[in-house]
Amino acid sequence: MSIHEKYMRLALENARAAKGQTAPNPLVGSVIVNEGRIVGIGAHLKPGEPHAEIHALRMAGEHARGGTIYVTLEPCSHHGRTGPCAEAVARAGLARVVVAAPDPNPLVAGRGIKILRDAGIEVIEGVLREESERMNEVFNRYIVSKRPFVTVKSATTLDGKIATRTSSSRWITSAEAREDVHRLRHESGAILVGVQTILHDDSQLNTRLPDGRNPLRVVLDSKLRIPEDARVITDGEAPTWIFTGSHADPAKRQRLEEAGVRVFETTGSERVNLEQVLDMLGSSEISSLLVEGGGQVIASFVEQGLADKLVLYMAPKLVGGKDAPTFLEGLGIADMNDAIGLTGLRAEPLGPDLKFEAYFPKG
Amino acid sequence: MSIHEKYMRLALENARAAKGQTAPNPLVGSVIVNEGRIVGIGAHLKPGEPHAEIHALRMAGEHARGGTIYVTLEPCSHHGRTGPCAEAVARAGLARVVVAAPDPNPLVAGRGIKILRDAGIEVIEGVLREESERMNEVFNRYIVSKRPFVTVKSATTLDGKIATRTSSSRWITSAEAREDVHRLRHESGAILVGVQTILHDDSQLNTRLPDGRNPLRVVLDSKLRIPEDARVITDGEAPTWIFTGSHADPAKRQRLEEAGVRVFETTGSERVNLEQVLDMLGSSEISSLLVEGGGQVIASFVEQGLADKLVLYMAPKLVGGKDAPTFLEGLGIADMNDAIGLTGLRAEPLGPDLKFEAYFPKG
Repeated sequence: MSIHEKYMRLALENARAAKGQTAPNPLVGSVIVNEGRIVGIGAHLKPGEPHAEIHALRMAGEHARGGTIYVTLEPCSHHGRTGPCAEAVARAGLARVVVAAPDPNPLVAGRGIKILRDAGIEVIEGVLREESERMNEVFNRYIVSKRPFVTVKSATTLDGKIATRTSSSRWITSAEAREDVHRLRHESGAILVGVQTILHDDSQLNTRLPDGRNPLRVVLDSKLRIPEDARVITDGEAPTWIFTGSHADPAKRQRLEEAGVRVFETTGSERVNLEQVLDMLGSSEISSLLVEGGGQVIASFVEQGLADKLVLYMAPKLVGGKDAPTFLEGLGIADMNDAIGLTGLRAEPLGPDLKFEAYFPKG
Repeated sequence: MSIHEKYMRLALENARAAKGQTAPNPLVGSVIVNEGRIVGIGAHLKPGEPHAEIHALRMAGEHARGGTIYVTLEPCSHHGRTGPCAEAVARAGLARVVVAAPDPNPLVAGRGIKILRDAGIEVIEGVLREESERMNEVFNRYIVSKRPFVTVKSATTLDGKIATRTSSSRWITSAEAREDVHRLRHESGAILVGVQTILHDDSQLNTRLPDGRNPLRVVLDSKLRIPEDARVITDGEAPTWIFTGSHADPAKRQRLEEAGVRVFETTGSERVNLEQVLDMLGSSEISSLLVEGGGQVIASFVEQGLADKLVLYMAPKLVGGKDAPTFLEGLGIADMNDAIGLTGLRAEPLGPDLKFEAYFPKG
């Protein structure tokens, strides 16, 4: 680990510590070092309050002069509540700025760096960039597209099955993995399934954790086949939104709305139009969506290039079966050379199971 | 790591160093420690030469007296070329014996330990037992059952597919993973596929490594559908054995035999009888068999409880498709609670891919 990485890692730790309290702003941390001593640390703590660099500069005071500032995100160039941070950094007389990630907004990315370089300050870019971008992956997607960051989640056996040939699926994974799913739900703005999941399991799609937050529940149901006594409709645990197609029964729609459910019509006929779903969720300030299946719904998101991240729990078991379903169904790709290449694969053990995280190629 | 584990690990390292030169004997290593100093080390190096303990005792000489001997396998109790090691250990005046694994032969397991305890020597069992058993997994299976240790190998996408819906499968995994497969072949006594693999790929089933050893090639072909110009028949790279069913065409069988292939008839009609295949390989002193597929052949081995180990290469890609094949096909299991639980799962990165190793439950 280089000395730059050491200080940037501290900045990342401070940024991450504020997780959950900065939305709609990103997590940002900063450290100022002068003559080998840390002279200031800062993090963005709350919208409307100073950016990370400003906190660190205030702490450092005159010790900032001639020093190096580490910041996990490119200093801003816009005139917000605390002025452009890039200008504040330049005024403080720092000799060097080390930046992890560029501004995620392509319209302004690079402007902060330019202000600094124009002021004669040395700038080093890209130190622990990937870690910084992962930390703000939801924010980075949402700020650019105004659509939620889409995480596709599934659980399979080691031979790739999400159920046996008879649709038996309880339980594939361990209690540890299932608890992790509830943590994922807790951190998500909304959770989405196809109506098949409701018909098959009458899932509640809630967060079974102490102090767990229930996300908005979203059901794709092009023909409004959802039973009116489904638990997502009757249990009152969280709001439920149903997205339907253009041929849904108006009478059933009215009864569902009277039961407290919001029903949105999309222009899809056989299948719900997913882009319209994401636009609607985004315009309702839902910045993260967890897609829990089944295999056909996941395939629709993947085939249309609408998935950002995959979270896959894999149990060390086999069930076999030519007709047992896998997590990614649909038509599928024809040529192995056209396979969707995932990036940034990480694997970690969770009890007896493995948890994989990986990213879809950017659309 | 305890002090016992420290010395046992050294004994395991010395044992492993002789891999490939001890067959049909197992790999065994030994270390003797007295008053905190290593006074002897040994390994079994060649059939007919001394066992590991004897080498270590000779090196230690009088320093063995009152000391502790570490040995990766229970000292033998039989009168072979170097006499029962258990008696030699007792005569050397050692105070303590630390053993990793018991003798794999249930007929004699525990006898060496009993000789030692009857002589008043303290015996500690089971230190790094699993590592020792893994090191000799092929030997341990073969010595007991006289059948080869069966490793099932496959390569899948992260969504569990071994090919796309159009049977496109080149290449799923990286060059690093494919090289590892060639190392597996190099270490196997025989490699087995179903005739479908020959019909589809005209595979050569050889080892593409510098100084690589080609294993015996085994093809399951109940109806003798193999083309007479298949490369496994014509290339002369290694012997090829075909196992067929009870209704194979005698004329084709004769032509294949004239081309230098051995053809064995089993009592199976629709499918080759796998137990007879394993018996025949075992009686020909093939102690390890690598089953490379396809999904139906692998399912037959797994469903009949004939597989010992799974090696699975998984690439960080997705192809999807309801009709794309998975590595474990067949009928499959009905209830998720009856899933085959694998044990000892290990995962390691190989280039961009992951390599999994796990064990099937013992039959």
